[in-house]
Amino acid sequence: MTERSVGLIGLGIMGQPMARNLLRAGYQLTVATRQRGKAEAFAKENSHLGQVEAVETPAAVARNCRTIITMVTDTPDVEAVVRGQDGILTAAGPGSIIIDMSTISPRVTRELAAEAATREVHWLDAPVSGGEKGAIEGTLTIMVGGAETALEKVRPILEAMGRRITYFGPAGNGQAAKLCNQILVVGNLLAVCEALTFGAKSGLDLPTLHQALTGGAANSWALEVLGKKIIDRDFKPAFMVRLQQKDLRLVLDAAYENQTPLPTTALGHQLFSIIQGEGRGDDGTQSLARIFERMAGLESD
Amino acid sequence: MTERSVGLIGLGIMGQPMARNLLRAGYQLTVATRQRGKAEAFAKENSHLGQVEAVETPAAVARNCRTIITMVTDTPDVEAVVRGQDGILTAAGPGSIIIDMSTISPRVTRELAAEAATREVHWLDAPVSGGEKGAIEGTLTIMVGGAETALEKVRPILEAMGRRITYFGPAGNGQAAKLCNQILVVGNLLAVCEALTFGAKSGLDLPTLHQALTGGAANSWALEVLGKKIIDRDFKPAFMVRLQQKDLRLVLDAAYENQTPLPTTALGHQLFSIIQGEGRGDDGTQSLARIFERMAGLESD
Repeated sequence: MTERSVGLIGLGIMGQPMARNLLRAGYQLTVATRQRGKAEAFAKENSHLGQVEAVETPAAVARNCRTIITMVTDTPDVEAVVRGQDGILTAAGPGSIIIDMSTISPRVTRELAAEAATREVHWLDAPVSGGEKGAIEGTLTIMVGGAETALEKVRPILEAMGRRITYFGPAGNGQAAKLCNQILVVGNLLAVCEALTFGAKSGLDLPTLHQALTGGAANSWALEVLGKKIIDRDFKPAFMVRLQQKDLRLVLDAAYENQTPLPTTALGHQLFSIIQGEGRGDDGTQSLARIFERMAGLESD
Repeated sequence: MTERSVGLIGLGIMGQPMARNLLRAGYQLTVATRQRGKAEAFAKENSHLGQVEAVETPAAVARNCRTIITMVTDTPDVEAVVRGQDGILTAAGPGSIIIDMSTISPRVTRELAAEAATREVHWLDAPVSGGEKGAIEGTLTIMVGGAETALEKVRPILEAMGRRITYFGPAGNGQAAKLCNQILVVGNLLAVCEALTFGAKSGLDLPTLHQALTGGAANSWALEVLGKKIIDRDFKPAFMVRLQQKDLRLVLDAAYENQTPLPTTALGHQLFSIIQGEGRGDDGTQSLARIFERMAGLESD
């Protein structure tokens, strides 16, 4: 166990490229996944990048490393990995730091941080935006909640994976900031879908429209990137509908808890559910445009 | 009457700076307004910039100039100026070009263009985005519908007022493109209002949040510019609620006509009406945030 030892639990679309960037930065990794064999396969395939060991359980990761990253899908996944049987907290020693980079409930985050604190384990919530592309390129935006002293200890580790690291205050605040990000993402996408559908129904040439509107006060990342994909009929996922829906459920649950009305976000959540109902939850979020096109009576491909 | 003669009807927030830019570019202006004395005052105040003459009626403008710009508020205003008593069409000769830079109904635009065509008068709809600032700086985005040959004749005139001039096809298409712009503007603003309100209710520091989110996939012009004003509690108008509402009514009327469902845009229109109901229609559109703050039980200033 050295200062260069980092544990990582979760090797999905995001976890794998993040792990590779940690190896390239010289960290010695201990990895575990809940799906048997996945960690071993990863360790074998990536041993050329650096020192990486696969172990069986989160507890085994915590015995190897004082800094443990979790990158799993949803709130119950983090709960299982942290406080379940063979979870991190069964083995983590005092002074250990858990960095949860998953996007989960701010409220449960505060609960987990409090539980960790009773064992003198620090908690940082550090959810990311930037998607698979940002994970591969090491350019993730990282929104951090928890003790600032803990953040400063692990900042170099985060810098191996991301570019813009922002501290937001106590545990849970990183998750709340990430949820703000998702509110913007869905609202901007709704606007793109409505504008392009109205434009198509009005007989406008959409590439011309896109070029004109990206230059002014109507512009957004969603218009630039997702708008272009919609016009090009490219519905491959940069970010899958089912993961967006998971995040929007987190947003709406948190907004219910702190009593914030979010009618636009709720509208987006409802309309995305049409795509899920069709069994196309693995499509990219920009496929929301097809729902608008169909509602407007346009042929959709 | 020379090729450098341009007529301009409407000297409001937009028309005045546009007129000054035409004078600076060396055009000889004939101006008229429906409000008596306003054109005369403008001519007197701006005679140092170039040759500018005030006349009494749109018909008098059309007798002086073969190119006539209209920059008035709404559909009925353009109709009055074009086909009313002493309107442009009572006097415009064959080959004249009317450039309507107001934001009005695409359907009425097509009707007016057809009526103009019976008198061999060309119609260009050329609504703008960029607001008062863009008008002053001569950097307006101009979205053009009508005959492309007519556009090419007047392009230098438009270039004196704007930077990005895009041709969208037949009459009405410029207006349709402008309405797409407004759909995006309102959806992006709704997203900003919801994200900042949720962030405030979650106890986040809003300037920190703003800085983090403008760097990634959540970003928009609305977040950058209007989000900053909301955080700074600056509700002065860059674009007034009552003008935004006029444009959204045009959007929703046109969407009703071409049967495009626009739930997000309709939501924005409804919520803006709260501000109008309070008699604050002259506030900037970013004051929509105060409605969300109040709905969420936050103290608003």
